[in-house]
Amino acid sequence: MQPEPSPYSGRVERLRAGLAQADALLILDPKNIRYLTGFTGSDGALMIGADWVVLLADGRYVTQARSEAPGTEIFEFRRRVDGVAALTRQHALGRIDFESAALSVEEYLRLLEALAGVDVRPLSDGLKSLRAVKTEHEVAKIGEAARIAKEALAAVLTMVRPGVRETDIAVELDYRMRCGGAEQVSFETIVASGPNAALPHATPGSRVIEPGDCLMVDFGAVYEGYHSDETCTYCVGRADSRQREVYGLVLAAHDLAIGAIRAGVACGEIDRVVRNCLERAGLADHFSHGTGHGVGLDVHEEPRLARGREEILQAGMVVTVEPGVYLPGLWGIRIEDTVLVTEEGCRILTQTPKDLTIL
Amino acid sequence: MQPEPSPYSGRVERLRAGLAQADALLILDPKNIRYLTGFTGSDGALMIGADWVVLLADGRYVTQARSEAPGTEIFEFRRRVDGVAALTRQHALGRIDFESAALSVEEYLRLLEALAGVDVRPLSDGLKSLRAVKTEHEVAKIGEAARIAKEALAAVLTMVRPGVRETDIAVELDYRMRCGGAEQVSFETIVASGPNAALPHATPGSRVIEPGDCLMVDFGAVYEGYHSDETCTYCVGRADSRQREVYGLVLAAHDLAIGAIRAGVACGEIDRVVRNCLERAGLADHFSHGTGHGVGLDVHEEPRLARGREEILQAGMVVTVEPGVYLPGLWGIRIEDTVLVTEEGCRILTQTPKDLTIL
Repeated sequence: MQPEPSPYSGRVERLRAGLAQADALLILDPKNIRYLTGFTGSDGALMIGADWVVLLADGRYVTQARSEAPGTEIFEFRRRVDGVAALTRQHALGRIDFESAALSVEEYLRLLEALAGVDVRPLSDGLKSLRAVKTEHEVAKIGEAARIAKEALAAVLTMVRPGVRETDIAVELDYRMRCGGAEQVSFETIVASGPNAALPHATPGSRVIEPGDCLMVDFGAVYEGYHSDETCTYCVGRADSRQREVYGLVLAAHDLAIGAIRAGVACGEIDRVVRNCLERAGLADHFSHGTGHGVGLDVHEEPRLARGREEILQAGMVVTVEPGVYLPGLWGIRIEDTVLVTEEGCRILTQTPKDLTIL
Repeated sequence: MQPEPSPYSGRVERLRAGLAQADALLILDPKNIRYLTGFTGSDGALMIGADWVVLLADGRYVTQARSEAPGTEIFEFRRRVDGVAALTRQHALGRIDFESAALSVEEYLRLLEALAGVDVRPLSDGLKSLRAVKTEHEVAKIGEAARIAKEALAAVLTMVRPGVRETDIAVELDYRMRCGGAEQVSFETIVASGPNAALPHATPGSRVIEPGDCLMVDFGAVYEGYHSDETCTYCVGRADSRQREVYGLVLAAHDLAIGAIRAGVACGEIDRVVRNCLERAGLADHFSHGTGHGVGLDVHEEPRLARGREEILQAGMVVTVEPGVYLPGLWGIRIEDTVLVTEEGCRILTQTPKDLTIL
């Protein structure tokens, strides 16, 4: 792979093409600001006009902004709304389209007050897909994150045995990912055993692993800003026939979905494949979330693989496939991989084997 | 201390007293939902009427909600807006006041559409102070978080020497806090050396510590949902006369602020004490953020100790005091403690000594 040329001006150009009738776009999601400038601070704003770009940062972040976004003009604000208002006056803007998913109503009402007379409109959904199709450099970063995560999990699995607490495994897994080069973990790692595995978003706690448990581990690493996302479910000591049956069913749904993914297919279709598979076994009611989501600078981003979603998969999108069956009070099984959509199908980026494994 | 009686109904009552003319309050900040019900999920809503309370949760969180908030009615939604709309019809609500800081404009516009004909208004600022005054049980949790953080830092300081990377110290510190009982770290730990310490919000990176560096460590632990927040700045190997002078100045500002804190004093007054102290040394321009903030279920909450803030400190508030001086390209020094406001003064909850220490 060639070294990555600076991608920022090309991304801004692509966004500008959708500027529509607005005099300027106001970008507020920190991940979009990073994608468009390189600035990684958690507070800021980006204004994009027809022939100018200004990154707004507060005093805590100005030095960092200059260093991370050397090609972009920096404007320092004390209150973000005041910074936007100052630039609006300076450029005599008549209409600003803003990122409505990334602005609170509280700040919006202040903004309307500060911009009296200016036409302020929520950006249409177009921006949501800004980051959906990845370059090979972005895919490589996700792949490296997945590699770090896989190595860490492999090292930690040796400590899984009855008597160990969920939280001890989670702490060790996070530590190993970071020692292995993850700048952060993708999200709060889920290590859920026994009935806790029936909670799709369980927080690891003091529960001690018991023989016969399902042990669900949902985890990911962040590498150069890019996330991995993967779920492995194990059986501890033994697997009963119902666990084996459901594991096989969830794995079948997972494999069918991965087999169905390719450029040109609607996102909702992948979800339908999973749901139909679980439905045939009478377990669709125990699958309480969508089939997958995009992964990149955010661990959850566009597109969404969920019921009725009409967006069409494109080559270069990176999405999770994560069917699950949750039996409240008993146990749960989820199997998740992150895949790169290609013209012919997909390539799996996460690397831990998904066959039923008894630890 | 007596065991903690369930605090939730009392908190809801206190909030209800501010219901004003609304038929219901719509609470959206996950930390406020936790404070009012015990539910710790990251997505949900809480509706509070004159004689009813309903916690709305999506499918992923319903089982958890039932377990964490046993005294509260649970309503399952697929789209949050639809859940709010269904309850609005069920209770024939004419006016709903909502948390405007915790709702995106995108969802707000959908809500207005779903609630056509209903009077939907942003809650006044009153809610911001809902959690500001802590009970002794809350203070004890913050204190325990601070203790875990202190122990972890003490263990990690032994590894600080020239040649060690910032990120290695941060990873080890986070690991030790979690091994010591922190359910999470309070925020992305800052370990910043040399010129990086001049960036108030630096992210730990691959920079290697050098003799003569200032080393800034800003860190905290979370215990039962409650955060600690503390910053220590060390000199590595030696401290030159300018570093000693500025360290003494920042410590003096810190001590003056702590000496000024007591119930009845305005928050802005504490900030003024710090700024005046730095001003006399000609360094106020190098202090680019506020003096402090409340700490509790969030690491940043009310009240804010910043320029011009008129809110009055009350006994039971827990706030940080964190003056700093940042010399771009050279180094920075910040000294931060978290303190409990009392009638007579304050009690320092963070526990690492703040005298100049050369490692």
